Amino acid sequence: MWGGRFAEGPAAIMREINASIPFDKALWRQDIAASKAHVAMLGACGIVSDADALAIEAGLDKVAAEYEAEGVPEDWDLEDIHMTTESRLAELIGPVAGRLHTARSRNDQVATDFRLWVRDAMDQADAGLLELQKALVTRGGEHAASIMPGFTHLQAAQPVTLGHHLMAYYEMIRRDRSRFHDARKRMNECPLGSAALAGTGFAIDREMTAQALGFDKPTVNSLDAVSDRDFALDYLQAAAQCALHLSRLAEELILWASQPFSFVRLPDSLSTGSSIMPQKKNPDAAELVRGHAGRIVGCLTALTVTMKGLPLAYSKDMQDDKPPVFEAASLLGLSIAAMTGMIAEATFRTERMREAAELGYATATDLADWLVREAGLPFREAHHVTGAAVKLAESRGVALDKLSLVELQGIDGRIGEGVFKALSVESSVAARASHGGTAPAEVQKRVAEARKALGMAS
Amino acid sequence: MWGGRFAEGPAAIMREINASIPFDKALWRQDIAASKAHVAMLGACGIVSDADALAIEAGLDKVAAEYEAEGVPEDWDLEDIHMTTESRLAELIGPVAGRLHTARSRNDQVATDFRLWVRDAMDQADAGLLELQKALVTRGGEHAASIMPGFTHLQAAQPVTLGHHLMAYYEMIRRDRSRFHDARKRMNECPLGSAALAGTGFAIDREMTAQALGFDKPTVNSLDAVSDRDFALDYLQAAAQCALHLSRLAEELILWASQPFSFVRLPDSLSTGSSIMPQKKNPDAAELVRGHAGRIVGCLTALTVTMKGLPLAYSKDMQDDKPPVFEAASLLGLSIAAMTGMIAEATFRTERMREAAELGYATATDLADWLVREAGLPFREAHHVTGAAVKLAESRGVALDKLSLVELQGIDGRIGEGVFKALSVESSVAARASHGGTAPAEVQKRVAEARKALGMAS
Amino acid sequence: MWGGRFAEGPAAIMREINASIPFDKALWRQDIAASKAHVAMLGACGIVSDADALAIEAGLDKVAAEYEAEGVPEDWDLEDIHMTTESRLAELIGPVAGRLHTARSRNDQVATDFRLWVRDAMDQADAGLLELQKALVTRGGEHAASIMPGFTHLQAAQPVTLGHHLMAYYEMIRRDRSRFHDARKRMNECPLGSAALAGTGFAIDREMTAQALGFDKPTVNSLDAVSDRDFALDYLQAAAQCALHLSRLAEELILWASQPFSFVRLPDSLSTGSSIMPQKKNPDAAELVRGHAGRIVGCLTALTVTMKGLPLAYSKDMQDDKPPVFEAASLLGLSIAAMTGMIAEATFRTERMREAAELGYATATDLADWLVREAGLPFREAHHVTGAAVKLAESRGVALDKLSLVELQGIDGRIGEGVFKALSVESSVAARASHGGTAPAEVQKRVAEARKALGMAS
Amino acid sequence: MWGGRFAEGPAAIMREINASIPFDKALWRQDIAASKAHVAMLGACGIVSDADALAIEAGLDKVAAEYEAEGVPEDWDLEDIHMTTESRLAELIGPVAGRLHTARSRNDQVATDFRLWVRDAMDQADAGLLELQKALVTRGGEHAASIMPGFTHLQAAQPVTLGHHLMAYYEMIRRDRSRFHDARKRMNECPLGSAALAGTGFAIDREMTAQALGFDKPTVNSLDAVSDRDFALDYLQAAAQCALHLSRLAEELILWASQPFSFVRLPDSLSTGSSIMPQKKNPDAAELVRGHAGRIVGCLTALTVTMKGLPLAYSKDMQDDKPPVFEAASLLGLSIAAMTGMIAEATFRTERMREAAELGYATATDLADWLVREAGLPFREAHHVTGAAVKLAESRGVALDKLSLVELQGIDGRIGEGVFKALSVESSVAARASHGGTAPAEVQKRVAEARKALGMAS
Repeated sequence: MWGGRFAEGPAAIMREINASIPFDKALWRQDIAASKAHVAMLGACGIVSDADALAIEAGLDKVAAEYEAEGVPEDWDLEDIHMTTESRLAELIGPVAGRLHTARSRNDQVATDFRLWVRDAMDQADAGLLELQKALVTRGGEHAASIMPGFTHLQAAQPVTLGHHLMAYYEMIRRDRSRFHDARKRMNECPLGSAALAGTGFAIDREMTAQALGFDKPTVNSLDAVSDRDFALDYLQAAAQCALHLSRLAEELILWASQPFSFVRLPDSLSTGSSIMPQKKNPDAAELVRGHAGRIVGCLTALTVTMKGLPLAYSKDMQDDKPPVFEAASLLGLSIAAMTGMIAEATFRTERMREAAELGYATATDLADWLVREAGLPFREAHHVTGAAVKLAESRGVALDKLSLVELQGIDGRIGEGVFKALSVESSVAARASHGGTAPAEVQKRVAEARKALGMAS
Repeated sequence: MWGGRFAEGPAAIMREINASIPFDKALWRQDIAASKAHVAMLGACGIVSDADALAIEAGLDKVAAEYEAEGVPEDWDLEDIHMTTESRLAELIGPVAGRLHTARSRNDQVATDFRLWVRDAMDQADAGLLELQKALVTRGGEHAASIMPGFTHLQAAQPVTLGHHLMAYYEMIRRDRSRFHDARKRMNECPLGSAALAGTGFAIDREMTAQALGFDKPTVNSLDAVSDRDFALDYLQAAAQCALHLSRLAEELILWASQPFSFVRLPDSLSTGSSIMPQKKNPDAAELVRGHAGRIVGCLTALTVTMKGLPLAYSKDMQDDKPPVFEAASLLGLSIAAMTGMIAEATFRTERMREAAELGYATATDLADWLVREAGLPFREAHHVTGAAVKLAESRGVALDKLSLVELQGIDGRIGEGVFKALSVESSVAARASHGGTAPAEVQKRVAEARKALGMAS
Repeated sequence: MWGGRFAEGPAAIMREINASIPFDKALWRQDIAASKAHVAMLGACGIVSDADALAIEAGLDKVAAEYEAEGVPEDWDLEDIHMTTESRLAELIGPVAGRLHTARSRNDQVATDFRLWVRDAMDQADAGLLELQKALVTRGGEHAASIMPGFTHLQAAQPVTLGHHLMAYYEMIRRDRSRFHDARKRMNECPLGSAALAGTGFAIDREMTAQALGFDKPTVNSLDAVSDRDFALDYLQAAAQCALHLSRLAEELILWASQPFSFVRLPDSLSTGSSIMPQKKNPDAAELVRGHAGRIVGCLTALTVTMKGLPLAYSKDMQDDKPPVFEAASLLGLSIAAMTGMIAEATFRTERMREAAELGYATATDLADWLVREAGLPFREAHHVTGAAVKLAESRGVALDKLSLVELQGIDGRIGEGVFKALSVESSVAARASHGGTAPAEVQKRVAEARKALGMAS
Repeated sequence: MWGGRFAEGPAAIMREINASIPFDKALWRQDIAASKAHVAMLGACGIVSDADALAIEAGLDKVAAEYEAEGVPEDWDLEDIHMTTESRLAELIGPVAGRLHTARSRNDQVATDFRLWVRDAMDQADAGLLELQKALVTRGGEHAASIMPGFTHLQAAQPVTLGHHLMAYYEMIRRDRSRFHDARKRMNECPLGSAALAGTGFAIDREMTAQALGFDKPTVNSLDAVSDRDFALDYLQAAAQCALHLSRLAEELILWASQPFSFVRLPDSLSTGSSIMPQKKNPDAAELVRGHAGRIVGCLTALTVTMKGLPLAYSKDMQDDKPPVFEAASLLGLSIAAMTGMIAEATFRTERMREAAELGYATATDLADWLVREAGLPFREAHHVTGAAVKLAESRGVALDKLSLVELQGIDGRIGEGVFKALSVESSVAARASHGGTAPAEVQKRVAEARKALGMAS
């Protein structure tokens, strides 16, 4: 029955399914920091003697130094990073190590460690996204007036500028960062001191540990503090939305890099070539960013499903909280960095973009708007007239602004000479100067605001 | 080939797959409001005449009155709520209706309508959750000193109070509300005036429409404004987390209502009985709340997957944004209301809870803590002594505090008379008076703070 | 507290959250059929008298006729389709109606009804997919020799034929159908007679009802029979995979319909135009198929999460099984029909495809293969030589087969005259005649096999 | 800008995001096997010389021996397992190694390797589930007559037997195995020889490689063969359904192990204790099985989202196919083994179960059934009479079968002496002898059938 991998039977299975040390060793820095804050507080409150507190602190520093130098040993019998560290501490400083665990439990300990880790992950995402914003703003400013087709339904609709397009992603990333900021603020309460689930009878000072670990304050309900993984879900949700944005930009870069579009040349450093087809440059990094979005969504689903329907307080299911968060953080960090590199170093083929913008009667809306504005037609009627003009241009095989005034007037007598100014792609984008519109001047204004917001030189 | 449902062929398929009116008619109030704000602005800016603006406004009021009285007609050929309304407006007021669509497009129109709807849904969730918090706080205050077993791994671990347990959910809901608040603040920018994707050449006043519709300001990038569904995802993410919390509470109520637990009698009004087993009271409402969590997570997944990898700007896939949001909002609203009813009207069987708390040597930790605090043992050593005491009590078939002092001293000579004060469930909970602990006095303090925060009578 | 929608309080909430009649009325045909099979069996086994059985059957027919004519009434107090029908039956035939519920319960009744519904949905998906396969095979046969670029990483890699490309989807749909077949076979066991959860003491004949309802046999464990929703998950999983395939084809049609590609003109009947840009044809149906994939995945997630961790036997959470299945079935049916229409009626712009195939040195691999085959080079060395040839062609701005023999021999002396035959796109595709390759003859062979498998004229 | 982890800039990012060797080295056995099959075929077909083929085979054996002894080296610059092996092969045998890659590409190579890996994973799941079935059948047979309460809504509904309950899971696992079997059969086609995407011009023998690798036949469309990941999704879907079943059983074990239920003592080897509360036995393994269900669902979501909307043929996103499959396989294997251990070694506390079965008037349905069967009442009327009897018993504080005949006849005169035989829990379960019912004899029949189906001694 126990043939194969688990020949020893249940004990072997248990050792393997129960051990979290293979992944939670990633928490070692947080675990040491929280233990140091805890013992300093125990000392300050007179719960352990100053001498014991100092001995424990010194021992923890020694353990940390060992981990730094040699990595965290992975002994499945010690189960997790907390027991691994406590056991090593006891080897180093003897029974006094046992005083460290006064007034705490693994339940509040892991809640504290993991929260610290996630807080760092939020800060790292934010820092990475700031760099991506800078890249977007820099390239957006360069291309505030570079004309490209604006698509809806992936059909050319109206001309826009590349700068405007890049600044759309700046806005998405701005929301992503605000999501991480909100999540960070919401989670910045310290669970340490909640003990197993009910708080503790020792006269501890939770404000002191909270402050030492950079939290705004201690949590206010011990049952909630050890059962709560909202902070991890908040992180994964923010990561998923960010990954969706990156997946959209990745999709566009892949499209733009295809031969039929040829709107962009991606940097060699973030593409792979083919030894046989030197002209082939595969947008691997962009594809992986798009693919990673799927996996990050999977991580969010994993923790969401795991938490569903769990009674209070700590259940062992919650040990499955870490792998999805660690995986998502790694994938997101790489995705942001890769996207930043692609945006910063892409060569935009603006001449191809502009050619594409001039196809497809993309300024037809401008004709309709002109009819409304200058000739006073209701919009729906103006639409109708414009449709006739485009049909004529199409049958003649020319662009809209290559029809003669006579021809246009044959469709509607109210059309005047001034209309031609409206029909070039330049005048089309220049005209859309409403707040948030694609007009180069408007884009420059947004770029300037963004540079200021990011602390970039103006 | 087109046998069966689509005998007419592609045209019939297209009519059915393309029509959003069956669901987006839910947006009619928002659509009318946004159109009124738009035309008032067009009038104020001189883009349409005052007379035309007034005619359109009056017409829109008439359409709204018809919808209110008779519902929104569902004509698939008119596709969506925007065309349905515009078409009816034209019937009522003639060609001047065509001026309403000046300087806007369906892309910014639906983005505005849907945002308004989601904003309302956020406000409704918040209002519902406030009521749930009040119920939790009220019952929590009543039971600040009611003792029950605190579970980890669904095994009795330490005694806690029911009030503390209920206040744990108060904390979760507090975070849920803050999530809706953050989302609302992030999304409160008005896309109207972004037009199809590029902004407009009409000299519109976007501040005016934004203000009229209760937004903080207009969005700043037209491409982003029509491509963005972050606000819907933010709503679904907040809803999913909230549903997870409700699923945990539902799970507990189902457990507690089972015969083996018998911790609670759920209100008749939210249970179903059996005509044949009158003692049977099925916790249907709680089960449905737990089940709905699954569906709300499904709604979040749906929109997440739909948005992945979409290029800018509007793609028709985004028409699939509304059904998941509408469904989640309905399920969440019902879940919150049902849970509020269950908490408000549940009969907690505190005597059963207390009996259960006294089983299982749940005060063993208190003995260990006493040994640390009063006899100066390191915690790990105190654990060991306690284990021996529990083993003796178990073999004798008595509770811990029924062992004699002599028996206890036989295990460790440092144990003194004072220990007995620590071993009752009352002293156990009373002792855990650390910040956020389960001590009745501490719970009362939290309840008082919460009542103040919610504006309840103190 | 109960202000707003639920002013009446918990009773109103319960009525709304508990009622499944708004959606489970879709099961009315299955409910009537199962009741008729049940009562016929009760009669045959002498559990009810023949007269009673006949009266009940006649009454059920009458109810069915009413539903057919007027729809199913939606009275929330009657909760679900089972009580709605039983109540109407009692009105029509009096207390004898009460005998219908002998030896069954709502738990096995709904399990049977829903299983019948899902079985139909599987058959409908299969029938729809058959039509899609026919369309793919028909168009694949037409274009067995139409050359287009084959992409990897959305970069042109090697020429393929359009027929080969379409037949790739034929294979995917073949797997989808086999998935529905497997699921149908696995689920085709009848739960009726499992009663509430434990079976029944009446001497019923479960083989008889199973047979009457088209099942292979009765289920063999009553607890499992009422707790099992695998069949619904099997359906949703098969639907999700099918939707993924359709989403890939939809993505390609959207790409191909874009101006830069211009590989296809989608049928007018499945596109939307713009009154102002007559050349604009939005691939709405394809976008909705792609979007629907997201929602179908959401439906799968919903039921998966709902079922997680439910104890046996029936829990009310399981009432949430139907909405995701009903929604997915509707979306999938529409998606299959729309895709069939698009494939059947698309105009493939083969001249554009062929032009694109000739760009990008897509026959470079053919040069390398020639070097291996004819000149005996190891493949990796052949790659290197080919790279040099492509670089030369690129610097000269010509296609590979426009280099002179002298130029090629300047790179590697082993290149001979025969190489030119390998370098055209026609010879490239013709050469790939390995089993499953893109050679037109090979594609024709696959098309012929497929036509035979589908029962199409050869 | 490139401060921190990627100080080197894009090149460092690319090396990290692009390298799959950290995870795809798990494919080394499959990669070697597929390469050996390929080169043997190339030799047999005369595409490479016999001497070269033999040299390559010997070299591959040497590489395999090195991997076996020392593990697979992880050099990110070699990207993946294919390049790692090819590069080592070249070091060992020189340029002839380059002939191995004739008539194949990494695209068909990875599709083959991964398919082989997934096929093994399916076989391993099947083998593990067989052991779990044996444990269920063994314990089910032991407890064919052990009475426990059958729950609906987690409320005691009718008595059932523990054997029947365990055999419900036997049925679920039977379906899970059939799902893996179906998936294995569907996927057992060999993609090798499909080359990059279009097939190859070399006269290869795909039947030969397919056979050598244990496939039923080669795939028939090269574009599909390199773009298809259905087999991985099929695996994940089957794994997710299996995990759901395990999560339900885990939930029950956790409930049953709680003090209020006390239906089971889980084996020490699969629980964790507490040094301080020796009576506390945490059901960690069961909780982890339940938690792992969440992560396995996350893996399914990940690959589903990743594949959505990808155009043909290979895209780099598909490199993200492996981590979710590897993770799910590891979690599922552990979950099955842990559950097998728990079932095999659990101590069922049948006396507690039986006590619980006698509470709650669980035989009320038997009274109603008796009234229908023996006294000829319509079921709905019998329900009404029973309700009155239970109400009386409840008010008297006795079990149903402790009411006197006179008391029962006071409710309905048709009740006779014989009714008492129906009201004990033994007669209740014995009576439910319909096909698939809970009667011990019926359960024994199912156990015998199952033992035969599994090849266990009868």
